[in-house]
Amino acid sequence: MTRQELINAIQKKQSFLCVGLDSDINKIPQHLRNEEDAIFLFNKAIIDATLPYAVAYKPNLAFYESAGIKGLIQLKKTMDYLHSLDDKVFTIADAKRGDIGNTSQQYAKAFLDPAGDFDFDSMTIAPYMGEDSVTPFTVYDGKWVILLALTSNKGAFDFQFTKCENENRLLFEKVLETSKKWGNEQNMMYVVGATKADMLTTVRNIVPDSFLLVPGVGAQGGSLTEVCRYGITKDCGLLVNSSRGIIYASNDKDFAQRAAEEAHKLQMQMADELLKIK
Amino acid sequence: MTRQELINAIQKKQSFLCVGLDSDINKIPQHLRNEEDAIFLFNKAIIDATLPYAVAYKPNLAFYESAGIKGLIQLKKTMDYLHSLDDKVFTIADAKRGDIGNTSQQYAKAFLDPAGDFDFDSMTIAPYMGEDSVTPFTVYDGKWVILLALTSNKGAFDFQFTKCENENRLLFEKVLETSKKWGNEQNMMYVVGATKADMLTTVRNIVPDSFLLVPGVGAQGGSLTEVCRYGITKDCGLLVNSSRGIIYASNDKDFAQRAAEEAHKLQMQMADELLKIK
Repeated sequence: MTRQELINAIQKKQSFLCVGLDSDINKIPQHLRNEEDAIFLFNKAIIDATLPYAVAYKPNLAFYESAGIKGLIQLKKTMDYLHSLDDKVFTIADAKRGDIGNTSQQYAKAFLDPAGDFDFDSMTIAPYMGEDSVTPFTVYDGKWVILLALTSNKGAFDFQFTKCENENRLLFEKVLETSKKWGNEQNMMYVVGATKADMLTTVRNIVPDSFLLVPGVGAQGGSLTEVCRYGITKDCGLLVNSSRGIIYASNDKDFAQRAAEEAHKLQMQMADELLKIK
Repeated sequence: MTRQELINAIQKKQSFLCVGLDSDINKIPQHLRNEEDAIFLFNKAIIDATLPYAVAYKPNLAFYESAGIKGLIQLKKTMDYLHSLDDKVFTIADAKRGDIGNTSQQYAKAFLDPAGDFDFDSMTIAPYMGEDSVTPFTVYDGKWVILLALTSNKGAFDFQFTKCENENRLLFEKVLETSKKWGNEQNMMYVVGATKADMLTTVRNIVPDSFLLVPGVGAQGGSLTEVCRYGITKDCGLLVNSSRGIIYASNDKDFAQRAAEEAHKLQMQMADELLKIK
């Protein structure tokens, strides 16, 4: 999906909501757990219910890999279902990969290749190994790298805020600056946690037009209003993710309806925020 | 596998060789490629041939994931085979994962849980997201985190050598220092690339007794002698990985025999190095 197609989808749905499919067999409603394709059935119900309000879906790979090969089959079924929809959505493999050049090529093939099992639009990448660990993910047309810049967790403070000597910047700022040599607004986004919304001004000084994937709204405590105050651009430039707040809104038979309600609430707030940028 | 068991295996085989199973369907010998279980058959032949000379095996996940679910089945068969051997080896999931706490728990379950599909002894982890992205991997008894410190690729220079202001250390040194609060010599190792062997003195000042996983000998240009000069300890403290130099020593029917020869050469050099520490 190209940048313009994503912007069009945001305008059409008046939403920049990404639904995080962190689907855990121990947390989905009891009545589904014994089904052969429990996770897929759960995901399908969540997707059907939230599709009017969401422009993106983000399965976190860990939740599928933890169930081994069976888990990956559930992911493939989920992706096949998303690809079958008339209403095209932006898909994110939240995989946080990154390895030496020839190995990153293999990861790119695994998740982004249209001929592969998954055919995601984008995947999250960790920056620690530098350029040759990132650029192999930018070679597929219409596909995206989403580079970790400032994450939403407590551990972000261990290294990401390190002051770089004689550079007058923090490590996450250096990651943002450096990565601009590796990609552009058409093929690179950044993860910036909603729990650090006040940092978005700094981020926007470095990457004024890039899309940001913002996790941490909801269960992790981030505020949508704050994120928009500091991060929204004329093209929106944001994908705000909510996982647990939507998919586990209820753990009973009404889970899909409750997920739709939570997604709708966020979408309405997002519509208000989009109005402000006109 | 515990630290002592690993040391015992190194003593017994007079080797600290890790064979990297970066098995690529486009690089394995032609006569295997059309087999249903081509990658597993290749791996099995490599393992059988190199087992007298190696104490560890390291499949890089990217090479399996790039073939989708079928690739993961090949990995599972490989792991089942390694677990079936009387000659116990140390197994490394070269996965370079790392995510927020509750997600890292899922990755740990995926690769380290004895009840899971793979049951590796260890896995490689990227440090960018800090403490809660790393500690979930240290909870399994006898299992290991192998944290990226200084990688063997060119991109390592982008961030890992960043000078930290008022800390008198480089970023990779900060990663090493900080991680000592998260684990110890019994459950944490570090990746330090052989292409940066002169940095091993610095590394040893911070983690004098920890095992280091050293990639980059061979195809990437690192020297075993240099690595041992600066990195070996009284307990050895090294696992030196070779991937392409061994598994692709020949791409003909003699591939396993040629792999054994290359592994044997390295093992003999390693035996010499182990003699020096007596």
